[in-house]
Amino acid sequence: MGTTQLESVSEPKYWHLRTVLTEALESEFTVGEILPNERDLAARFGVARATLRQALEQLELEGRLQRRRGVGTTVAPPRMGVAVGTEQHAWPGTGEDAWQAVDCTLAEAPAAVAEALETERAEPVHTVRRTRMTHGQPVAAELLYIPQSSVPELTAIDAPHGAARARAVLRELQRLELEGNESAVELGSAHADDAKELDRLPGAPVLVVTTRFLAAGRTAALSVATYRADTCRLTFGDSGNVEIHQAPEQRAS
Amino acid sequence: MGTTQLESVSEPKYWHLRTVLTEALESEFTVGEILPNERDLAARFGVARATLRQALEQLELEGRLQRRRGVGTTVAPPRMGVAVGTEQHAWPGTGEDAWQAVDCTLAEAPAAVAEALETERAEPVHTVRRTRMTHGQPVAAELLYIPQSSVPELTAIDAPHGAARARAVLRELQRLELEGNESAVELGSAHADDAKELDRLPGAPVLVVTTRFLAAGRTAALSVATYRADTCRLTFGDSGNVEIHQAPEQRAS
Repeated sequence: MGTTQLESVSEPKYWHLRTVLTEALESEFTVGEILPNERDLAARFGVARATLRQALEQLELEGRLQRRRGVGTTVAPPRMGVAVGTEQHAWPGTGEDAWQAVDCTLAEAPAAVAEALETERAEPVHTVRRTRMTHGQPVAAELLYIPQSSVPELTAIDAPHGAARARAVLRELQRLELEGNESAVELGSAHADDAKELDRLPGAPVLVVTTRFLAAGRTAALSVATYRADTCRLTFGDSGNVEIHQAPEQRAS
Repeated sequence: MGTTQLESVSEPKYWHLRTVLTEALESEFTVGEILPNERDLAARFGVARATLRQALEQLELEGRLQRRRGVGTTVAPPRMGVAVGTEQHAWPGTGEDAWQAVDCTLAEAPAAVAEALETERAEPVHTVRRTRMTHGQPVAAELLYIPQSSVPELTAIDAPHGAARARAVLRELQRLELEGNESAVELGSAHADDAKELDRLPGAPVLVVTTRFLAAGRTAALSVATYRADTCRLTFGDSGNVEIHQAPEQRAS
């Protein structure tokens, strides 16, 4: 990367370094390549370790770098396009569903969930936990909340617990006619359980997609799905296949 | 917030503090209320300033706190739902468009944009800059790239520059029949120009929505919109009005 010294600039020093590093990544490094260690990089660019770390964190946030314990910092592949829009108008567990049921519990819903479901806080809700795999990697963890009243026929006899129970709950849910759904995506941070499933550290930035499934004029199920923000681009719309991973970075130049 | 001392726990200390603070924010604080200063907070919870800051940064990332110079740390209002899905099947600048044209330039497109537009890198592209306001606040900044070939009738005579020029370009674009669009949302960081427009610091986490507008069998326009991740929830789907701002936090309890 040469031995460029950074002149003092109006923008924060780490930000200027981030831009310089971005250009270096595009021109000199290949996907998966391991970067020199922090001390060497700091020396080469004539910046303090703290400044370098800020710039590296920035590039990790932008999905350009991956930092893994034991491996070091590597150049990240382009983010994977993960379709969200195409899941619309289908019940969870039907058709081309990319989700794998993990388990299912019956418990009181968290206050915000009970509110969204318009159920009494005390009413037990089936909580189906699912994982979404793409190219063999876990890209999302989901909690799917289904009030007992949405699956009245469900019996405890068949599939009392685990993934089989989860599938039984989804089968019952599919008896209802889906009238529509509505979703929102926002920035969140990975909670301990999700972080573990997604191979991230707690607090890592994630994209949280909340989907409300409407049937019989009410919310029959509520999905809270946590996607890895470092490896995923959520695609929606007609076909949702937009291929300009680098647009945000490019705008800096 | 009492004088709770945190026992050592398996999860990172700042993460446990984050959970404790989240509960305190829900039970004891109101939106807009200013938190005690860092020294007092650190003393009350018996943690180091660094640990406290980590927890506060986490809560800011989750949209629970706002930190503004001169004001201090305040309890953030729930994120605003900003409809993305409803913009589908409409050209920019038509109908219920929440965007305001700022200016328009004619220049070579960045490489990734030229690639997405399937134009030659050297072909000049109209770049319309727009801002999206919600409740009087700027929530997004957009760069809309329109190849000259998409607006062949555009003359330099009417509206040579500025917002008027931008509107003229959009009017010409609307002559084409929109065949569909496809979008993707991903995590990014605010670049200097966007940061200024959105009243954020460079590097602040943002949600970048890329939309490809299709007409005459090709990409007639490309939008790269940068949304504030701290104040916005992007809604899409049938009506896109999901109201469970706290779901991610709730899952931690």
